[in-house]
Amino acid sequence: MTSPTPAPDARIAKASSAARAETRTVPQSEPPQTPLGRIPVMNVRPVVDCGARPAKSVVDEEFTVSANVFREGHDAVNASVVLIDPDGVETVLPMHCTNEGLSFWESVVAADRTGLWHYRVEGWSDPYGTWRHDALIKVGAGIDVELMLEEGARVLERALATVERTDAQKAALRDAIAGLRDTTLGPQVRLDAGASEPTRSEMTTRPLREMVTASAAYPLLVERERALFGAWYEIFPRSEGASIDPKTGRWRSGTLRTAAERLPAIADMGFDVVYLTPIHPIGTTARKGPNNTLVAGPDDPGSPYAIGSPDGGHDAIHPDLGTFDDFDHFVARARGLGLEVALDIALQCSPDHPYVTEHPEWFTTRADGTIAYAENPPKKYQDIYPLNFDNDPAGAYAEVRRVIQVWIDHGVTLFRVDNPHTKPVQFWQWLIADVAKDHPEIIWLSEAFTKPQMMHTLAKVGFQQSYTYYAWRNTKDELEEYVTELAGEAAAYMRPSFWPTTHDILTPYMQFGGPAAWKLRAALAATLVPTYGIYTGYELHEHIARPGAEEQIDNEKYQYKDRQWYRYEKGGDREGQSLAGYLTRLNQIRNQHPSLRWLRNITFHTADDPNIIVYSKRRPLQERTGSAGFDDVVIVVANLDPHSTRESQIHLSMSALGLDHYERFVAHDEITGAEWSWGEHNYVRLGPENEPVHVISVRR
Amino acid sequence: MTSPTPAPDARIAKASSAARAETRTVPQSEPPQTPLGRIPVMNVRPVVDCGARPAKSVVDEEFTVSANVFREGHDAVNASVVLIDPDGVETVLPMHCTNEGLSFWESVVAADRTGLWHYRVEGWSDPYGTWRHDALIKVGAGIDVELMLEEGARVLERALATVERTDAQKAALRDAIAGLRDTTLGPQVRLDAGASEPTRSEMTTRPLREMVTASAAYPLLVERERALFGAWYEIFPRSEGASIDPKTGRWRSGTLRTAAERLPAIADMGFDVVYLTPIHPIGTTARKGPNNTLVAGPDDPGSPYAIGSPDGGHDAIHPDLGTFDDFDHFVARARGLGLEVALDIALQCSPDHPYVTEHPEWFTTRADGTIAYAENPPKKYQDIYPLNFDNDPAGAYAEVRRVIQVWIDHGVTLFRVDNPHTKPVQFWQWLIADVAKDHPEIIWLSEAFTKPQMMHTLAKVGFQQSYTYYAWRNTKDELEEYVTELAGEAAAYMRPSFWPTTHDILTPYMQFGGPAAWKLRAALAATLVPTYGIYTGYELHEHIARPGAEEQIDNEKYQYKDRQWYRYEKGGDREGQSLAGYLTRLNQIRNQHPSLRWLRNITFHTADDPNIIVYSKRRPLQERTGSAGFDDVVIVVANLDPHSTRESQIHLSMSALGLDHYERFVAHDEITGAEWSWGEHNYVRLGPENEPVHVISVRR
Repeated sequence: MTSPTPAPDARIAKASSAARAETRTVPQSEPPQTPLGRIPVMNVRPVVDCGARPAKSVVDEEFTVSANVFREGHDAVNASVVLIDPDGVETVLPMHCTNEGLSFWESVVAADRTGLWHYRVEGWSDPYGTWRHDALIKVGAGIDVELMLEEGARVLERALATVERTDAQKAALRDAIAGLRDTTLGPQVRLDAGASEPTRSEMTTRPLREMVTASAAYPLLVERERALFGAWYEIFPRSEGASIDPKTGRWRSGTLRTAAERLPAIADMGFDVVYLTPIHPIGTTARKGPNNTLVAGPDDPGSPYAIGSPDGGHDAIHPDLGTFDDFDHFVARARGLGLEVALDIALQCSPDHPYVTEHPEWFTTRADGTIAYAENPPKKYQDIYPLNFDNDPAGAYAEVRRVIQVWIDHGVTLFRVDNPHTKPVQFWQWLIADVAKDHPEIIWLSEAFTKPQMMHTLAKVGFQQSYTYYAWRNTKDELEEYVTELAGEAAAYMRPSFWPTTHDILTPYMQFGGPAAWKLRAALAATLVPTYGIYTGYELHEHIARPGAEEQIDNEKYQYKDRQWYRYEKGGDREGQSLAGYLTRLNQIRNQHPSLRWLRNITFHTADDPNIIVYSKRRPLQERTGSAGFDDVVIVVANLDPHSTRESQIHLSMSALGLDHYERFVAHDEITGAEWSWGEHNYVRLGPENEPVHVISVRR
Repeated sequence: MTSPTPAPDARIAKASSAARAETRTVPQSEPPQTPLGRIPVMNVRPVVDCGARPAKSVVDEEFTVSANVFREGHDAVNASVVLIDPDGVETVLPMHCTNEGLSFWESVVAADRTGLWHYRVEGWSDPYGTWRHDALIKVGAGIDVELMLEEGARVLERALATVERTDAQKAALRDAIAGLRDTTLGPQVRLDAGASEPTRSEMTTRPLREMVTASAAYPLLVERERALFGAWYEIFPRSEGASIDPKTGRWRSGTLRTAAERLPAIADMGFDVVYLTPIHPIGTTARKGPNNTLVAGPDDPGSPYAIGSPDGGHDAIHPDLGTFDDFDHFVARARGLGLEVALDIALQCSPDHPYVTEHPEWFTTRADGTIAYAENPPKKYQDIYPLNFDNDPAGAYAEVRRVIQVWIDHGVTLFRVDNPHTKPVQFWQWLIADVAKDHPEIIWLSEAFTKPQMMHTLAKVGFQQSYTYYAWRNTKDELEEYVTELAGEAAAYMRPSFWPTTHDILTPYMQFGGPAAWKLRAALAATLVPTYGIYTGYELHEHIARPGAEEQIDNEKYQYKDRQWYRYEKGGDREGQSLAGYLTRLNQIRNQHPSLRWLRNITFHTADDPNIIVYSKRRPLQERTGSAGFDDVVIVVANLDPHSTRESQIHLSMSALGLDHYERFVAHDEITGAEWSWGEHNYVRLGPENEPVHVISVRR
């Protein structure tokens, strides 16, 4: 951990004095231009904020590096991408010109371990390419034959002298040179020696690169796979095991021990992360009652987001939930089941938080000497004091950093951050970077349901994952447009997490869509993007909203909820009414199909019915350099209308599936096990009558 | 002039060693992120290549600076743009939030003199805005009244203490503070003292800016108006005054003296620039004959682009044209008529150029010891040796720089560069910058009819103007899409020049469109963009192409052409057959309407007929800060079908004209003098029967 003092202090300006973050010094003698290199390399992608912030990927995630590379005149130009690993070791990979008119070059790359990588694009003069192009035309036409063959020999001599090769490779080039100069042979045979295989292959693999001109080196932060791919399951731990004491008629809180008993069921459903809402002591001043009422009864537990009481603050555990030993037991149990633990970080305080008396400088004091509570006039939130990071940034930053370390030390590996957009963005940038120095495995999920610029910038400055607008994107146009945006340039820095509901979100679509909507929205979330999340109770179609709000009635934020899971189990009186089996199948499919672990590999196809959405994901299973490539391909077809079964023709872009337009394949529905013979055009029937979604694996 | 040695030398790599132009050093300890400031300022525009190259404007040209500026929580954010003049003097201008959802801020700015300016965007916390927003709600609702009024007084006290004001301005704020605290008054009156005019106005004009966070400072190169606006007229000087000697029957070349006799006619038509094709000695080896035939007769003058003979090279004048005295006379005559002189720069040599023997290192020597002529296999251009800038860049760069200075010293102020895309881009970057150090008034026009990336990059590295694809954009869709691109982000660095024909270009549209096409394409070129050019003979509708080529038959490139201008003058046998009057009127309109001097101010409107194009340009005539603003607005309506007269309804976006949707105005046709009463929807009839184009000024 680094002392936060210099960074925030230096960057918070006093009135009328500019804090010039990212300001270049502009001496008046500065030349107006950065010199261009010999071979122009322009518009390198992906680049985030001109390289001020890193592009991101996870280990082995393939993505495309592109640039415009061109040169003067007619001579051949070529390009490479250079990957620089965290130790500075460089790997040069070929690029391919995929649009000659636009001088557009691409290469698919992947980094094979975590850390801060860099990459650059190099444009270069390709004398062998120039010679081969001209020689094939001119020797064929009988123009300058002897001269062209000799010039070919000289190019290969340069290649031999300057590029490292094995003895066998050298010998092959020497043979080519001799062949080009062997006047006992015919011109076409001599030309072949220099222009055909294996010489061409050798010169492609180990090219003679001249006038090599490099772009800037751009940062690439490579993180562990969980940053991109994972299934989250959210619980309020106090609800798990909570029950009404039959003697007193009063609620008994669940504990970390009883909540741990729920973990096997969560793991059995195939989730990867269990996320706990805040587990800290809860204030009593202005405590909210059930359904967000302003006055709490004596037995109401209060919102876990009103953090802090005489029992402690953000570094403490609510006494009703247990002790740090109990927390350690919870984490150990989760780990034993293959689950990681995510903790909610809500940087705000109840009026009873120890900070209020110990560090009033971390709050805003008003003209009358009181501490400002949260408000968005005319709305007031008198149970919450927002932290103020500007009065004593050094102190406040260091304290948050200390609190985070407490939880890391107790095994938390992911943090779900509540409303990060109400704290200074530069604070998150500092905090996440400082944690990453010692704990690069930590993953931060941003809950910034706010304007897109803030959401995107939080991702750029370090959050590995972001909640999104998914819950409010229901139509085909909305989903296609939004996912296309997320899987496009934004995927270089922002990784979306799709949640059909949360404890704060229950859209009209979920309230009124019926069971088909609950299957559909989970299946879409689980297959459109690599990370998705389920708020507990989703299995039970909990669709009743508090009147006038788009969130659950009798919300767990303000009261205990005993879901009586045993009633939905085998032999229970509600057996068969739970979606747990469906969620389990979705997570199995996700784990069996590596194409679903990536974001940027999605393609949308077309359907005649505007309610039917069709998309596919494709991922090569073999190394690209390996001998026998075979792709994992998944096609999802879903009826977005939860109220009626619909029939439609769908039309697949076969090239996106790695198939030729005339080919047929076995479409295996991973949800039902059904199989059909499919081709470019196919019939589907989906909806509440049977299944709303096909998740089809392509088998050949 | 600066010695060119270090720049090119350092940047040309030998085989397999990378020349890292623009490469950052990437120490492995580098933090992965540039710290963000307190208030995020993102995506500043216009920025060219992340600020590596300057955005451009001309003196007093208005353009929009934009950025995404936002902050955490609910407090008010605000933004300014800071213009930094070439002496480092800063001017802070307000920005306006034009899209709150996208956190998008804009400001229209202009620089008032030439030189290298910079600008940055500053985001800041706006405590007065925060207070005013909250106070209007809370005091109105009777919440925290006394507290809010006191907090308003304290914000104004901070404003008083930290921002420079006159005594009167200070007194106004003191009155406001006293009013806020005057408990003898009612709350609404006290609130008004702080929240209404004139306090609000004072706090908008001289705001209290806190947490000021600046973007990087980006370069802005401000050039003279001719870089953006001008009408060019191209001539082959040897044709002007050329005639057949009646005694010998052989051609007598025109001279710089006889060409100067043509200048009054060019100036009378209202052109600003006379552009001369190359005037240097012409080689005889492999000289081309008429119509690009391979063998020239003894009297054929050869192509002026095959430069160099024993009489000299690029720094010499063809003896048939005259001497430097004659050139000086030509320039002086032009200047006297208000014309600037542009010279063609074609950096290539005939085999007879002095460089071939004196500096063989400036060419490419082939394996057989011969110098490489130009070729694009299987095409050969044996009359041309391309220069090679890589063997001796220091020497070659310095020589070109010397040659350019010769012509600058003789009064040339613009250079039309032939095929710049066949020379290294970095050479132009160096050359243009080096010339600009001593001669910032020099304007370079790039003739890069090539792929868009090269065309755009040449503009980015320094060319003030670029030939474009205009000649090949004929339909409404093509023109609207292309001009929208040119007037959009590209306008920050590339200034288009529209030429309906050149000595190399005669499209089928011009060959077969008849007289209406010639009027139309001149009128579009003259009004779509601020710079356009006419190749001499356009007045005479010279529309016959050489069979199999899209250029003039009997092209002046290979022979003399005596156009016998006198025959089209008053009393001549072809009086009335020339377009000179039409071109004159177009140039008059351009000079009378300042809106036509700008590029970025174009709006396209709609017409029912797909052959009718409608666009307008608008420019404020008064200073934005002045009292009575009035706009110059020009509307162009053109029938793109030169073969038939068409009627159509057209539909104007009235807001783009600065009018309300219900308003009517006098539409004055500047071509014919006709006037109509127009509104949002209007009838037009245009075509070969009468006029193909309306150029309408809006009068109220």
